[in-house]
Amino acid sequence: MPSRNDLRPNEEAVDGPPPGDAQLRFIGVIRTPFTSRELCPRQGDAINGPECRVVLEPLWHKALKGLERYDFIELFYWLHESRRDLVLQSPKANGETTGTFALRSPVRPNPIGLSRVRLLGVEAGALRVRGLDCLNGTPLLDVKPDRCAYTPQVPPKPTAMG
Amino acid sequence: MPSRNDLRPNEEAVDGPPPGDAQLRFIGVIRTPFTSRELCPRQGDAINGPECRVVLEPLWHKALKGLERYDFIELFYWLHESRRDLVLQSPKANGETTGTFALRSPVRPNPIGLSRVRLLGVEAGALRVRGLDCLNGTPLLDVKPDRCAYTPQVPPKPTAMG
Repeated sequence: MPSRNDLRPNEEAVDGPPPGDAQLRFIGVIRTPFTSRELCPRQGDAINGPECRVVLEPLWHKALKGLERYDFIELFYWLHESRRDLVLQSPKANGETTGTFALRSPVRPNPIGLSRVRLLGVEAGALRVRGLDCLNGTPLLDVKPDRCAYTPQVPPKPTAMG
Repeated sequence: MPSRNDLRPNEEAVDGPPPGDAQLRFIGVIRTPFTSRELCPRQGDAINGPECRVVLEPLWHKALKGLERYDFIELFYWLHESRRDLVLQSPKANGETTGTFALRSPVRPNPIGLSRVRLLGVEAGALRVRGLDCLNGTPLLDVKPDRCAYTPQVPPKPTAMG
């Protein structure tokens, strides 16, 4: 675990009870070319980035049925290397001390990452996507059709993608 | 826990190990006028809905610093009443059996809800927002500036909201 010695100027950490209000299950793993944080693209740069692969646990393969109808999907994942105790952060980019909830930093009390990605293809139990900026090996939490393209009452476009 | 007897036609549940790969901490609670699922608006209907209130635990109050600069924010919350074991679902709206990951149903292996809401005001440890469709009492997981409005390198608009 990181300590208070790792803080940048004006950053502030809090002591809370250990998390345990609800439990997550990892449903798969994300494969990207980014093997260290330094290699991860900045947010927003990723949509034209390299093709990545999302591999689901066999238990959940059937849950992909119908996903091929969408061009864009949301991926939720667990930022497993993030510390979780900072309330104030001083981002390297500008040093301006800001509250954690006013930043999209991976450092947050519940480090859930969310990316909107282009769905390139659906294979048996795996997705080919473009638009991820997370580390190789990041645990997958959820897959949803993109909300911008999603209209609950009207069926999505009927043809599968090519 | 729901049982297989609660399934609609063609729905399918799976047996997996109990979740425990990662732990969430609830950071607050969401107050809405919706006291039962039947009263919750459909997705997409909520942005013009009633004003709601997001109340943060005191431990995290400082983490709101700077959030008032944003007109829209993302709220992540835990859909604490959702079952988590369905791979195929037959939504009441159309009965078409579809994979869980091709739906935005609250029923999913990790029932994390995400809403983009309009930020009406920031008070000490609480937010006034419009655009929620979740049950009163829903546990809060995270608050982030809306990614559509977010440019990591450039500061947001300098004036606080009125």
